[in-house]
Amino acid sequence: MNVEQIGNSGERIEFPAGDALALDCGATLSPLTIAYQTYGELNASKSNAVLVCHALTGDQHVANAHPITGKPGWWRFMVGPGVPIDTNRFFVICVNSLGSCMGTTGPTSINPGTQKPYNLNFPAVTIRDMVRAQAMLLDHLGIDELFCVLGGSMGGMQVLQWASSYPERVFSAIPIATAARHSAQNIAFHEVGRQAIMADSNWHGGNYDEHGVTPAKGLAVARMTAHVTYLSEENLHHKFGRNLQDREKISYGFDADFQIESYLRYQGSTFVDRFDANSYLYMTRAMDYFDLAGDYNDVLADAFRESHARFCLVSFSGDWLFPTSGMKQILHALNACAANVSFVEIESNKGHDAFLLEEPEMFNVLRGFLDAAANARGIR
Amino acid sequence: MNVEQIGNSGERIEFPAGDALALDCGATLSPLTIAYQTYGELNASKSNAVLVCHALTGDQHVANAHPITGKPGWWRFMVGPGVPIDTNRFFVICVNSLGSCMGTTGPTSINPGTQKPYNLNFPAVTIRDMVRAQAMLLDHLGIDELFCVLGGSMGGMQVLQWASSYPERVFSAIPIATAARHSAQNIAFHEVGRQAIMADSNWHGGNYDEHGVTPAKGLAVARMTAHVTYLSEENLHHKFGRNLQDREKISYGFDADFQIESYLRYQGSTFVDRFDANSYLYMTRAMDYFDLAGDYNDVLADAFRESHARFCLVSFSGDWLFPTSGMKQILHALNACAANVSFVEIESNKGHDAFLLEEPEMFNVLRGFLDAAANARGIR
Repeated sequence: MNVEQIGNSGERIEFPAGDALALDCGATLSPLTIAYQTYGELNASKSNAVLVCHALTGDQHVANAHPITGKPGWWRFMVGPGVPIDTNRFFVICVNSLGSCMGTTGPTSINPGTQKPYNLNFPAVTIRDMVRAQAMLLDHLGIDELFCVLGGSMGGMQVLQWASSYPERVFSAIPIATAARHSAQNIAFHEVGRQAIMADSNWHGGNYDEHGVTPAKGLAVARMTAHVTYLSEENLHHKFGRNLQDREKISYGFDADFQIESYLRYQGSTFVDRFDANSYLYMTRAMDYFDLAGDYNDVLADAFRESHARFCLVSFSGDWLFPTSGMKQILHALNACAANVSFVEIESNKGHDAFLLEEPEMFNVLRGFLDAAANARGIR
Repeated sequence: MNVEQIGNSGERIEFPAGDALALDCGATLSPLTIAYQTYGELNASKSNAVLVCHALTGDQHVANAHPITGKPGWWRFMVGPGVPIDTNRFFVICVNSLGSCMGTTGPTSINPGTQKPYNLNFPAVTIRDMVRAQAMLLDHLGIDELFCVLGGSMGGMQVLQWASSYPERVFSAIPIATAARHSAQNIAFHEVGRQAIMADSNWHGGNYDEHGVTPAKGLAVARMTAHVTYLSEENLHHKFGRNLQDREKISYGFDADFQIESYLRYQGSTFVDRFDANSYLYMTRAMDYFDLAGDYNDVLADAFRESHARFCLVSFSGDWLFPTSGMKQILHALNACAANVSFVEIESNKGHDAFLLEEPEMFNVLRGFLDAAANARGIR
C-alpha cells in the first residue's frame, strides 16, 4: 500500500487490486485511491476519531487552505483547536468522497481497462458506496469505532448511512441539514443541472478531456441553479434585494444589472476552476438515488434498529432544500427505535448554506452534544 | 392600417410609422404589429371589454386551440360561454405581449433599419411598454374603458401597471399570483435561464437565425429550471415522489430514471417548439425590471392614488415564486389609498401554476367578483 503525503496533514492511499470495492451497481472498483485530510492526534485507545463528511461539491480540505483556490477550509469555524470539533481533543478525518475530483477515485481517474480516464464509463456510485470506501480507510487506519460521524447535506446522508450500515462502529452521529431520501424537488433541480452540463457542446458525451476543452458554461449554469437553492428567499432579499451592481440605473440590456446576477455569475465562474463536470453528474446522482428506507421495505426505523449511537439532529428554519419536515421523519424513525436522540431546529434565514456558516447556535449545540458524548466515551 | 384575420377570432394589426411606440428605454418602435384574439361581442356602449394578460411564456390563445401545438387554450376553464369570464356577456381580448413571439413585434420581427430580424438589437421592453401597446390596440378598437383587466404572474404585473398608468380606463382589476416588484430570488432564477440560453453554442450572440440553428438545448434547460419553480414541493411529492419511469429499478446511470426527470425533459423539449429563445430573454428581463413603486419614490400606494377601480387580489398558499406576502404588500398599498379591494388567498398545493389550473375556489371568487362588478357597471 502506497501512502503519499499531499499536504500538511493530507494523505492519499492506493488500495491494491486485492482490496477492490464492490459497488451497489454491481461493478467492482480497482485500483481504488482514497484522498483524505486529518487534524489532531489519534489517542492510544483510538477512541477519539471524528469523521467529517463533506457536501456535494465540498472536499477533504475542512480546516486547511484549499490547494486550488487558496481559500480557508470550508468548516474552519467548526474544526480546529478550541472550536466545537476541537482538534486538541479529537482526531478528525475527512475523506474526499468516492466519485469526486480531489484525489479519491472518480470519473477523472484512469480506467485500468483502457488506460484513459473513465469519464462516463465510471460506474455509478451511491451514498452507501461512499461510506464503504470511508470504512476501508478506517480499517487501514486501525480505527474500529468512530467517536462521531457528522456532516451536512450529502454529508448528512453519509452520516445516516454510517449509522445504518455500520451500527457497531458509530458511537455518536450528527446529521445536519439533510434527509433520509432525496425529494422530487431536489431531484428536479439536480436534473436541471445535469442537463445544463450535457447541453454544453464542449461536454462531448463526457469525453471533453479528449478534446482539450471543458463544459465550463454548462457547469457554471448548473452551479448557479444549485446556488439559488442553497439560499433562502429572505436571505436573498436582505443581501441583494433589487440593488444594482456598479451602476445608478438599469441598462435595458442583458448585463448583470442586479447584484444578485453578478453574484451568481461569479459563483458559477469560480466553481468551474475547482470542480469536474463529470464528477458533478456522479455526485448529484448519488444524492438522487439516496433513499435509506428503500433498503428496509420503506420502514425507515428499521434502518436504525441495530444502532446504539446517540444522535443529534440539526436542521435550519430557513432551509427549503432540506427542510425541517424531512429531519422530523428521521426523528420519528429514531424515536420508534427508542434511540438516544436530540433534535434542534436552528432559527436562521441563511437557507441551506447555514450549516457552512458561522452559526453560533449550531456551534453551541454541537459543543454541548460532543462534550457530553466525549464524557460518556471517556475522552478527555 | 392593415387588419389581417389569423384565426377564428384572431387578428393582427400593423400600426403605421406615425403610430410609433415610445419605449421606456428611450427607443421608438415602428412599425408595430399587435397580434390578439377576441371572444364574445363588444356591446353597443363598449362597456363590456375584458382584457386578459398572459404570463411569461403564454400567448393570446386563451380559449382556442394553439396554432402550433394544437392544445386547447391555456385558460379555457376561465374564458368561454358560461364560465367565470363569460363570453356570452363579456367581450374578451388577449394581446400577445410586446417582445413575445406569437405575432406581436418582438426580437424575431424584421428590423426596418437592416431588413433582417432584430435579434438582440431589439430594444428592451418593460411591463409598462407592454401595457402601452395594449392601450394602442384599445384606442384602435375604440374602447375607452376596460370593464376588467386580469391576469396571473407577468399578466398580473400588467394588471397593476394598467391601474397605475391608465386609472381612468380601468373599472375593475384582478391581479393573480403576482407581485408589485420582482424579487431577488425570482431575478436569480431568470438569470440562470438566460445564462443557459446564452451558454448554448447555437445561440451565436442571438443571431442563431443566420446560422440556421436554434439554441434548443439551452432554452430547454431554461424552461426546466423555471418549471420547477412553478410547482410546489408538496405537489411534486404527491405527483411524482421518487416514482420510477417505465422501470422497476434505478439504472445506475443518467437516463431519466425518475418520473420527475422524464416530466421535466418533456417540458423542456416541447417548449422549444413553440417559443423563441431571444423572446425568452426579453420577457424575463421585463419581469426582472418590474418595480411599480420604483416609479413613485418607492411608495407603492402612490401608484394607485388616481385609480377608482375595484380590485380583487388572488394568491395561492402553495405558490413560493409569487407568495402571498408579496400580494399583501399590494393589499396594504391599496388600503392606504382607501381603494375598493378584496383579497383572497386560495388554499392550494399546486404551486405558482395553480392560476392556470382548474381551481374551483378561484372560479367562484372571480365569478362572484365579476357579477357584482358587472351589476355595478350595468352590464347584463
